[in-house]
Amino acid sequence: MSSNVAVLGMGLIGGSVALGLRRSDPSRAVAGYDPNTHALEVAVKRAALTTACSGAAEAVEAADLVVLAMPVDQMSRAMATIQDALPTGCIVTDVGSSKAEIVSLGEAAFQGRFIGGHPMAGSERHGMEAADAELFQGARWVLTPTAATDAASYRAVSEVAVELGASAVALAPEDHDRVIALVSHLPQLVASALVDRVIATEGRPALLGLAAAGFRDTTRIAAGDADMWLAVLRTNRLAILESLQGLARSWDELRRWLQEEDWDRLHGFLVRASAGRKELFLKPDVGGTTDTLVMLIPDRPGVLAEVTTAAGELGANIEDLQIFHSTEGGRGRLEVIIQGQGPAAALTARLETLGYHVQRGLPT
Amino acid sequence: MSSNVAVLGMGLIGGSVALGLRRSDPSRAVAGYDPNTHALEVAVKRAALTTACSGAAEAVEAADLVVLAMPVDQMSRAMATIQDALPTGCIVTDVGSSKAEIVSLGEAAFQGRFIGGHPMAGSERHGMEAADAELFQGARWVLTPTAATDAASYRAVSEVAVELGASAVALAPEDHDRVIALVSHLPQLVASALVDRVIATEGRPALLGLAAAGFRDTTRIAAGDADMWLAVLRTNRLAILESLQGLARSWDELRRWLQEEDWDRLHGFLVRASAGRKELFLKPDVGGTTDTLVMLIPDRPGVLAEVTTAAGELGANIEDLQIFHSTEGGRGRLEVIIQGQGPAAALTARLETLGYHVQRGLPT
Repeated sequence: MSSNVAVLGMGLIGGSVALGLRRSDPSRAVAGYDPNTHALEVAVKRAALTTACSGAAEAVEAADLVVLAMPVDQMSRAMATIQDALPTGCIVTDVGSSKAEIVSLGEAAFQGRFIGGHPMAGSERHGMEAADAELFQGARWVLTPTAATDAASYRAVSEVAVELGASAVALAPEDHDRVIALVSHLPQLVASALVDRVIATEGRPALLGLAAAGFRDTTRIAAGDADMWLAVLRTNRLAILESLQGLARSWDELRRWLQEEDWDRLHGFLVRASAGRKELFLKPDVGGTTDTLVMLIPDRPGVLAEVTTAAGELGANIEDLQIFHSTEGGRGRLEVIIQGQGPAAALTARLETLGYHVQRGLPT
Repeated sequence: MSSNVAVLGMGLIGGSVALGLRRSDPSRAVAGYDPNTHALEVAVKRAALTTACSGAAEAVEAADLVVLAMPVDQMSRAMATIQDALPTGCIVTDVGSSKAEIVSLGEAAFQGRFIGGHPMAGSERHGMEAADAELFQGARWVLTPTAATDAASYRAVSEVAVELGASAVALAPEDHDRVIALVSHLPQLVASALVDRVIATEGRPALLGLAAAGFRDTTRIAAGDADMWLAVLRTNRLAILESLQGLARSWDELRRWLQEEDWDRLHGFLVRASAGRKELFLKPDVGGTTDTLVMLIPDRPGVLAEVTTAAGELGANIEDLQIFHSTEGGRGRLEVIIQGQGPAAALTARLETLGYHVQRGLPT
């Protein structure tokens, strides 16, 4: 368990991480820094930090875990600033909402000690004032291990996620970015475009009050902070472009169906979307029990990423994960605790096809 | 005040109208009909109706106001069914979410006794089970008077709106359809398209829990009833096509900016949308007082529609409205009570430019 945490960036997410960690273990040291002195003052006033530092390097001096929580376009500079001040073995993670670029920078700076992260929680409010120790309760926290990631890094950050009430799920950085472009960045652009069309076409008075709940819901995120969103969109540019192209194709179809009064196809589209929306937010029935998967693993890079991202893709929830290295070298034993018998069985089957020999149900 | 109301169609809206009217005046007779006997049974069980009828014609026999609340593609048939059974002077309105086509059918069947309406309230739930007497509290209720509309029709239906907690606002049917395409039908298609992209591109497990609050909000209405939406989209096809084309231009722009890394323009777009979203949902400051506008009006068709839609376009809230016909014939006096001194002044100025001579602040 990380007992000395440094949080760099006292915004909504960084502040909520600090508040949550302080609450879950009041004896833990949480050092923090933000170039915005007001944000830092609020963080101290709200008891999110045990030490407010005057610089990023100072904040990480005694840390065993560093959480980078500044805007994504400032991560590269922050990494360079702390690189030499970082204690040996200190693990570094981030909370940025795009991953491929940040993970490649992070691994260049910190090798296997870096693991990318993205807690799937937020709010249209922002800043330390809006920070909330409960923000991550029930949320997913994506981790993006790669072939270079140390098992200790995965474990330390997934423990933090669980401590804050979230559950960790692993995805490859590129898969994360593609999915997030679809479920976060595209909705943001769509919501903003809807507002933009309304402003461009109609004066305010005529619309006043005519925009019912549907419009309010659909455009809520358009009110978010433009600077923050721009930074996010910049780092995930290619995946967003791909998703925009997909949407433009859907749009062409819709226009053609309306033009040609092809009501059957339009109906099929609406039915599919309605069923899909309901299905997407069904709670998975994973049952209350856990199952332990044990496998001998070759001592080669990438095993951890392969196993955890297979779990992530199947929606299998990793409760705990440990690697025991063989004293003879060359191989080790990986134990993974999975929530629910169904997901455990599905993951076992997937891992077998990947060439692992998995034993289930053994006590660790 | 309408004391004998017939509601045809016991869905979310019709059921909520019936429940609200029964609650606001328990002595009022509310007759109802729905071809779906289960819906009718639920309406009786929930005391939404004083009489459940076995047909639409029977339901309207004693009515002084009929509310058409069936799906929009069934309105034409319903009008034909009740036309001969309707008592003299009985006023007819509807609650459909597109207006030009329905108003033209309604006026052909009922002349000036018909006035189109569209309460701007709803829910992703549907059916009589979800009906709620509170559904219209605080909502706008659009009325679409035309040159043919009787003042009595406007007054009767705006009274019902106010009784149910809504405020009436007048728009020309075509203006209504254009605005609603933008703030209701376009968001629906956007929400469905976002879900469709996600389903087409990604399997469910990987997305599980990765769709944070933004995606949930933006796609919420996609879960709505596909049959109902198809009917709505069909009757507002041309206005929707126009708004779809506008949004297609936005996609093209967004793609170009991302492609060319034109961050300045993308930033400007995000800033504009963020400010616009906040501004759109600001509560108007109309003050607590009302003002009375009195004008002599020529006895020609269209005066009522001209005055009320001018108010609607300015966002001026009509609290009450009455026409006093001159005994000498040929002209009359129109009194309009407007909420707030600012809107009253703005409406006065607009009406003067339309050639009316308006006196303000006189007691009725």
